[in-house]
Amino acid sequence: MSMTSTRRLKPLPREESLQLLRSVSVGRLVFTHLALPAIRPVNHVVDGDQVVIRAYVDTTIDVAVGDNTGTVVAYEADLIDPDTHLGWSVIIVGRASRLTDRVEADRYRRLLQPWVDGGPDDVIAIRADMVDGFRLVA
Amino acid sequence: MSMTSTRRLKPLPREESLQLLRSVSVGRLVFTHLALPAIRPVNHVVDGDQVVIRAYVDTTIDVAVGDNTGTVVAYEADLIDPDTHLGWSVIIVGRASRLTDRVEADRYRRLLQPWVDGGPDDVIAIRADMVDGFRLVA
Repeated sequence: MSMTSTRRLKPLPREESLQLLRSVSVGRLVFTHLALPAIRPVNHVVDGDQVVIRAYVDTTIDVAVGDNTGTVVAYEADLIDPDTHLGWSVIIVGRASRLTDRVEADRYRRLLQPWVDGGPDDVIAIRADMVDGFRLVA
Repeated sequence: MSMTSTRRLKPLPREESLQLLRSVSVGRLVFTHLALPAIRPVNHVVDGDQVVIRAYVDTTIDVAVGDNTGTVVAYEADLIDPDTHLGWSVIIVGRASRLTDRVEADRYRRLLQPWVDGGPDDVIAIRADMVDGFRLVA
């Protein structure tokens, strides 16, 4: 096996964690769907204390956010070397909501390419209420 | 922006999805912790119809699997180009259980390097009851 023998987790401060999340454009939204754990890769932008994504109307993600009453979701991004397993991971947990302000939503649409081809979409903001980042170091 | 303009999702058959999962060693376990969605990157091996991981005793993952009554979790791996956003993602959903057969557990321990340094660990098998794989193609 090509992996190094040992690693340890080094917890990261909130700001450094958000900075790492900002440094990549793809992550994974984690939510509950039909009472089961669900996960979808998606692209994002980080704006201050929130992660913003796009979701086509009526897709699983869009339905999961529901009636905008503040469904709690998780969002994760990482960069982990496939051989050494060194790298970092950042997880945020917080309330997700559709942006209802059209000007604000359109501003994010210009920053966020759609994940795949599709129809009309919602812009969803996830508040970084809890931020859990760590590095995997040798 | 360096990304290509459009992509589409191409669903993959079950066997091809499991083959892709088998081709990488790192993925993400998705579960519920304290009634909130939770996700942890971890390394895995795929053996037939199950994904096998290690979890240190009393960590969040270990506690989530609980009393071995078949907690349902999701497991995701992907390989997505950070610039073009082309690649693949495979998600399985199924029951997780600790392996209680010591010989079987030790066989997997030899195949699975511990994720980080730690104490005694459990070997957890996740049944690929549902397999959802797709490629992101141009």
